[in-house]
Amino acid sequence: MASSSRPATIKFLKAPTSQAWIDQALANLDEVMLDHSHCERKAASTAIKLMFLYPSDVALVEALTEIAQEELSHFKQVNQWLARRGVALHCLAASPYGSKLHKHVRPNGADRKLDLLLVSALIEARSHERLGLLGHHCPDPELAKFYRSLMASEARHYGAYWFLAANEFGADVVTPRLEALATAESEILATLHPAPRVHS
Amino acid sequence: MASSSRPATIKFLKAPTSQAWIDQALANLDEVMLDHSHCERKAASTAIKLMFLYPSDVALVEALTEIAQEELSHFKQVNQWLARRGVALHCLAASPYGSKLHKHVRPNGADRKLDLLLVSALIEARSHERLGLLGHHCPDPELAKFYRSLMASEARHYGAYWFLAANEFGADVVTPRLEALATAESEILATLHPAPRVHS
Repeated sequence: MASSSRPATIKFLKAPTSQAWIDQALANLDEVMLDHSHCERKAASTAIKLMFLYPSDVALVEALTEIAQEELSHFKQVNQWLARRGVALHCLAASPYGSKLHKHVRPNGADRKLDLLLVSALIEARSHERLGLLGHHCPDPELAKFYRSLMASEARHYGAYWFLAANEFGADVVTPRLEALATAESEILATLHPAPRVHS
Repeated sequence: MASSSRPATIKFLKAPTSQAWIDQALANLDEVMLDHSHCERKAASTAIKLMFLYPSDVALVEALTEIAQEELSHFKQVNQWLARRGVALHCLAASPYGSKLHKHVRPNGADRKLDLLLVSALIEARSHERLGLLGHHCPDPELAKFYRSLMASEARHYGAYWFLAANEFGADVVTPRLEALATAESEILATLHPAPRVHS
C-alpha cells in the first residue's frame, strides 16, 4: 500500500497530498526548492504582518517573533542549498494556493483574526506534510535529511498558530472553522497546479 | 562644549540630533521604548520587503536576511525591556519621519532601488546615533548598557545598506545622492515632533 511508505498524516489536513504532487516535485526538485525559498520569505513576512495587525497581543507577538526568526533561518538554509545546486535566485510565479485560501478569510474583526491564524496554521501544516514527503522520497540522502530537519519547526509553527486561535477563541469556535477552512484547503489542492511548487 | 559629552557623530548624517530631542526622550523613556519596539519590527519588515522587490539580487538577499534576523532579535529584546518596566504593548502613532523621508524615493527602476537602500541606510544611521545618545545619557545604567549593546549592529546595518548601494551603483552615483537624501533627512528632524519617538 502506498500509505505504508509515507510519513504519518497530519491531522489538521482533510486530504493527504496526492502521488501526482510527489511525482511532479521529485521531477522538478530545483524549481520546487526555489519556490520553497520564496515560501520561507513569505512565511516570515506573514508572521510580521500579523504582528502589525495585532501589536498589543503579547502572546501573538512573542510566538510570531519566534516563527519569523525561524522562517528567516530556513530561508537562508534553502538559499544555501540553491547556491550549492547552482540554481540562481529569481522570481517565480506563485501557485494560486495562497491567494485562493486567503479568499476564505472573513474581512472584519475577530472573524478576520481567527481566519488569518487558521489559514497560517493550515499552510504550515501542509508545508510540514510536503517537506516530510520530500524528506521521505527525495533520492539525494543529504537533501532528504535537510527536508526532514525542517519538519520539527514547521510542526511547531502550525501548532503555535492553532494554539493562538484556540487560546483566544476557544475550541467550540475554532474546531468547526478549522474544519471548514481545511476542507477548502484540500479542495484547492485537489487539482494539481501545472507548475511545480511547494503548494501546487 | 556639549559635543565633548556626546558619542562620536555619524558621518552619514548632515546634522547631529538636537539637545531638545535628548531632553524629550529622557523625559519619556517608556514611550520612546515602545516606539523603538515598533521601529525594530518595521526595520525587519522593510528588509523583507526589499527582498521581495529584488529577489534575484543574491548580495542583497544575503545581507538583508541577516539584518531582518537581527532586527527581530532586537524587537524581542526591546519587548522584554517593556515587560520588565510594566509597559503594555500597544499601538502608537508613528512620527512623520519615515513617511516624509520615503517621499524622496524616486518611483522607478534603478533610481528607486538606490533611494530605497540609501533611505534605509540613513534611518539606520540615525537610529544608531540616537540609541548611542540614549546609551550615553540614560540615567538607568542597565538600560543605558542595553542601548549601547544595540549600537554595533545598527552600525553594521547602515554600513550594509550603504555597501549594497555603493557596490551596485558606484561612489560617483551614490555620494551625491546620499548627500541630497541626508540633507532632506536632517531637515525633517530640524523641527522636533511633539510626540516623543525614536525619530521625533
